Order: sequence, then C-alpha cells, then structure tokens
Amino acid sequence: MPRAVVLLSGGLDSTTAAAIARAEGFKPCALTVAYGQVHAVELEAARQVALALGITDHRVISVDLGSFGGSALLGDGAIPKDRPLAEIGAPGDVPSTYVPARNTILLALALGFCETLGARDIYIGVNVLDASGYPDCRPEFVAAFERLANVATRVQGIRIHAPLIAMTKAEIIRRGLELGVDYAITHSCYDPAADGGACGGCDACILRKKGFSEAGVADPTRYAAR
Amino acid sequence: MPRAVVLLSGGLDSTTAAAIARAEGFKPCALTVAYGQVHAVELEAARQVALALGITDHRVISVDLGSFGGSALLGDGAIPKDRPLAEIGAPGDVPSTYVPARNTILLALALGFCETLGARDIYIGVNVLDASGYPDCRPEFVAAFERLANVATRVQGIRIHAPLIAMTKAEIIRRGLELGVDYAITHSCYDPAADGGACGGCDACILRKKGFSEAGVADPTRYAAR
Repeated sequence: MPRAVVLLSGGLDSTTAAAIARAEGFKPCALTVAYGQVHAVELEAARQVALALGITDHRVISVDLGSFGGSALLGDGAIPKDRPLAEIGAPGDVPSTYVPARNTILLALALGFCETLGARDIYIGVNVLDASGYPDCRPEFVAAFERLANVATRVQGIRIHAPLIAMTKAEIIRRGLELGVDYAITHSCYDPAADGGACGGCDACILRKKGFSEAGVADPTRYAAR
Repeated sequence: MPRAVVLLSGGLDSTTAAAIARAEGFKPCALTVAYGQVHAVELEAARQVALALGITDHRVISVDLGSFGGSALLGDGAIPKDRPLAEIGAPGDVPSTYVPARNTILLALALGFCETLGARDIYIGVNVLDASGYPDCRPEFVAAFERLANVATRVQGIRIHAPLIAMTKAEIIRRGLELGVDYAITHSCYDPAADGGACGGCDACILRKKGFSEAGVADPTRYAAR
C-alpha cells in the first residue's frame, strides 16, 4: 500500500481527511505540528485519532510560531466569540484566529516528511465552505502549493489532496461517519476549558455545531459549562 | 525604510544577500532557522553577521527536521569529502547533504514572519552556479514560491528576491566586498571542527575556496588542522 502523509491536527476536518486517505488506498502517515497553538489540547486529540485510525507512523514536530505572533490562536488577542454565522467566512473577512502562513508552513513540513518517506501524496483537510475565510484554505492555494512541490524536491508527481475543499461541514461529517470516524475523540474548539471541554462560542465550535445539526446526527462534542 | 525578511544562515551567500537587501533600500529583519543542522556553529555566525550588518531584529526559530532525517546535514550519514569540482552540482546529482524540502520550509517560515511584520519582501541567498545541485536552489523553485506566497496570505505583492541566483561564487564575494561584508565572520563548512574551524574538504568549503581564489582575494576562512 503506498504511503501518504496526512496533516493531522486532531480536529474534525483533518481526521476525516485521514480516513479518506485510507479509504483511497493509502497507508496514512500522520504529521502533527505543535506550532504554539493556545488550544494545545488538540495535540492529544491527534494522538487518539491516530490510534483509532490505526496509524502507526505519527510524527509530532514543534515550531514556535508564537515567536512571530500575529494571531489570536497564538495568544495574541482574544478568541472571537458568538459571532453570527453570516459573519464567519464572509467575503473579505479574515478573522484574528488566522495564523500567518500556517498552512504554507504545515505543507512545507509535510513535503519534507513525504520526501524522506519516499512518498508522493499529501492530504490536508482544508475547506472553503463552512470555514473561517482563511486565505490558505482556498483551492488556488492548494494548487499553487502542488506546483511548488513539484519543483522543490527530488520527487516528481507529488499530489496535494484536499478532499474536503468543496464540502460543507455536514457533508464532511456524513462522509466521516460512513468511514467509521468517531468524532467524539476529535477536538475543534479554539478556546477549550482547562479540562478540554469545548467553549461552544468560537468560530470553530459554531461551524462544528452547525455541521452536526445539518447532518442530522447527534453532536458528540463535550462542551464546557458556560 | 521598508522592511524585508532575510533568511540568514550565517554563511557566505545569505550574508551577501542581507547586505544586498540593505543596499537595495530595505531595513533587513533576519530569520535564522535552527533545523537540526550538524554544523550548528553557523547559528553563532548568523548572530555575529546580524550584529555586523546592524540588523536589530534577528529571530531564531527552531524546527527539528532531524526527526524526519534523510540528510547528512541532519546527521544521517557522513558528509561527503574531497569530491572533484566537476562532480559538485553536476546535472542530476543531488548530494547527501540535501535536506528534504529545506528551502520550502525556510521560505514558509519567512513568509509567516513577513506577514506579521507587515512587510512584502523576502531575500534568500540561493544560487545555482557554484552550488551543490539542490533542487530548491533553482530559479523555477523561487518563482513557484513567489506565486504561492501571493495566494497564501492576506498580503498582495509579495516578492521573493534571490539576488545571487545567477552569480558565481567569485561574483558573490566581489559584490559583498563592495558592500563592506566581512567574510571572516561567516561560516560555510558542513563539518567544522569542535572549535568551529572549517574542514576544507566538504562541498561547501570547496566551493567557498574556489570563490575566493577566482575573485583573486585572500581567503579569510579559519581552517581546522587536517
């Protein structure tokens, strides 16, 4: 079975992307990046997800993007809460939770891992619908990275797979459930309580709740008392 | 004066690129990446170079590419020594000192730093002549990264400057000397002695020596006893 690198944050999207990689005939090798995110509890979720999906090669690499700052996800300012759905991902709106160049950095690291494995396939769980309006989640970003990857290394034929890119959150959840994903162990919240409970009010929580609601399935998320 | 991010390893090329950025009207902000290189002495050289060039914003960020391995520069195998000049950078030859996706990772980190600074210009000291045949030192790589950068962030008009790309090592040295660069404080060797002395036999030493010789200037490098 050919190997594929899967960027795994431990969230709903990347977990589904990993399950899809497996369903598409790859042996997923997971890469989790500890980049200074305030919601570091997702790193433990990534470990549990890798275990549940039977991923035996799971690397965790650290790079302290907090030293650049510039994002609420890096502790620079408060996480926005209780925004109306119409505002989240509205055209031209890039929220304060955007981390400068994050997905470029994640894919660059995945490319290094991919080349050392002798693999040619990388999965990333970005999507543009029901998402936060980050520039590095758009199809043109993924396509530009793929073009770069194919002149950056010794490897030819590198493919960047973004299987969720045009799916709604509800479609992502339905696909994951078909593939046996246990969303109870995934973590999406940007501002969890000390015990890991989801806040329910950040953009990530709002989009996740909307997804389960529209998919018509019970939301397995453990929310903190508010 | 507009700011520019300069990737600064402490070597001859990146030091010259930093001096060129300043000569081209930018205030250089330096980024040095501790990526697990066995020649970590270059990190101290980067600090001295930043000081000498009057760079007041110098960030050092760590990312352990050694956990992927796959390169003699990461301690995976011996550094090749005393290769004939005709072999170094020969078409199709990528030596074992190549670090998978290194320049993609370096530029991705520079892009994050650039965006948080509110800058639009990044300098990198890659070159293809008198170089080691790494795929991520070629003009098509730099062009592809620039195209990526302009869809990856909130910033428009990002430029990736590679002012050395078509210069020989001798030309780089002559340009640096015109700009007042002190090459004695720069470090190129892949396999330095414990006291930091250059080995004189690795590809980086060979190309550096050839550069000083062809430029007709005294080589200020401190070599270890062999």
